[in-house]
Amino acid sequence: MKVGLVGSGLIGGSIVKAIAEAGVASEIAVYDKSAKHAAAVAEDIAEASVFENVEDMSTFAVILIATPVLSIAEYVDQLASSNAVLIDAGSAKCSILKMLEDNGGVPANYVPGHPLGGHTSTGPGRSDPAIITGSPYLLTPVAQTDPKAVVTARSFLESIGADVRELDPVLHDRFFALASHLPHLLSYALVRSLEELPEDDRDIVRELLPNSFRSLSAFARSDPTMWRDIFSANRDDIQAASERLYSSIEALLADATQVGASKLETELQKLRDLRRELDP
Amino acid sequence: MKVGLVGSGLIGGSIVKAIAEAGVASEIAVYDKSAKHAAAVAEDIAEASVFENVEDMSTFAVILIATPVLSIAEYVDQLASSNAVLIDAGSAKCSILKMLEDNGGVPANYVPGHPLGGHTSTGPGRSDPAIITGSPYLLTPVAQTDPKAVVTARSFLESIGADVRELDPVLHDRFFALASHLPHLLSYALVRSLEELPEDDRDIVRELLPNSFRSLSAFARSDPTMWRDIFSANRDDIQAASERLYSSIEALLADATQVGASKLETELQKLRDLRRELDP
Repeated sequence: MKVGLVGSGLIGGSIVKAIAEAGVASEIAVYDKSAKHAAAVAEDIAEASVFENVEDMSTFAVILIATPVLSIAEYVDQLASSNAVLIDAGSAKCSILKMLEDNGGVPANYVPGHPLGGHTSTGPGRSDPAIITGSPYLLTPVAQTDPKAVVTARSFLESIGADVRELDPVLHDRFFALASHLPHLLSYALVRSLEELPEDDRDIVRELLPNSFRSLSAFARSDPTMWRDIFSANRDDIQAASERLYSSIEALLADATQVGASKLETELQKLRDLRRELDP
Repeated sequence: MKVGLVGSGLIGGSIVKAIAEAGVASEIAVYDKSAKHAAAVAEDIAEASVFENVEDMSTFAVILIATPVLSIAEYVDQLASSNAVLIDAGSAKCSILKMLEDNGGVPANYVPGHPLGGHTSTGPGRSDPAIITGSPYLLTPVAQTDPKAVVTARSFLESIGADVRELDPVLHDRFFALASHLPHLLSYALVRSLEELPEDDRDIVRELLPNSFRSLSAFARSDPTMWRDIFSANRDDIQAASERLYSSIEALLADATQVGASKLETELQKLRDLRRELDP
């Protein structure tokens, strides 16, 4: 089985390692706009080599597209007439589908996907097969997707150890707007707030910054290009999630009065219990 | 040296352990509205015993007040005419000072304080001397505070291993509104957002909830009574910090367009670099 990879960042590098560990491919072709990045991923993997054109992968069985979200549709279009099943790794699905619709339709061989094992580290140097193996890989096929392509995608991803699930793309984007995109945006926005502090306060920031701020802002260390694309691609859902969050903050602050605030305490108890239930 | 403790939660329990480990007190009196909680803290500490009235500590050298923020002023008032230096552990300072002003003035023997080593666990069972030893303990004395009381407070806290710093109370509250109180409020509000998801989405929450959401919402596991008081006590500063954060979110989303968004990428790069600088 021949497998292609387009995009050699953290996720791409991790996919190649997972494929190699599973031993399911006779050949792995790696393409990246930067041939140097592609070479870094192919290095040390016996089956892997750098390809200079994605079209040269068109006879392959499966091609994984792990580029930033806004450039995925372009590669899907380039490979739409190939024999390969195309699986992407974008964290927002609807804008990719819309770009494809606007450009002549969603190809039948494209199976939209989203692996959930990523973290804030970036680049192939931090790649780790565990980001794929044992982690959920969501597939969000649409009416235009060939059911056989979904079967191939699922079976390939399962062969390299991923925990494959299917989800509606609209539901996917709405859920991840709240569950991932907004938390990342909050991290960046919290760091931005530090810049607005008066000079006196800024002096004490570094030494006294509590764990809560450090922890909530930690995701601002994520890859700026990847997140620029996600924030842009899923902007409307993120905006809606952000407005709901702000309403929640306003409601909690409205209950915070110095005369008892027993309603607020009851609400915080309920939220604490709900949060505890989310722990494994 | 005789030392009193009012309030036997996580911080109170940790203070008693730190005092006992440092061996600086001949007697430690522990008071709590719940005699059972006081007994849990005094247990296993040779010098410690339960007191039923805070007034019985009035001849002591130092009394630490580690109750929820909104009840601190009441105990400071009760002990205002004692010989003891009073140090509290409240995370918001100005509302305590205002309550004292409104009630006849800030006592000269009260040294407002705030230990920074706390975490989301609650109750004396999780107490740990390291929450005090080696962690910053901020003091925010005001014009009415006796400078000798500050010297005593500092020297006592340093004798049990705390890293004592002084800070203006207004600056303290403004800084912690952004650096601690707002992050905690965001955690609670994120959990509250889950309740507003459509039923379809709620089914997938538990299994697919990403690390980013888990990490940003983790502080909703904190003690509801403690945080009800902090949100109420510092409400105006938290409100202001929340409005600034929301403006930042709006600004970032306004830069998120599908046509390049290079301004957003530049901004995210800057914020990532700033966040990296905050790492030790």
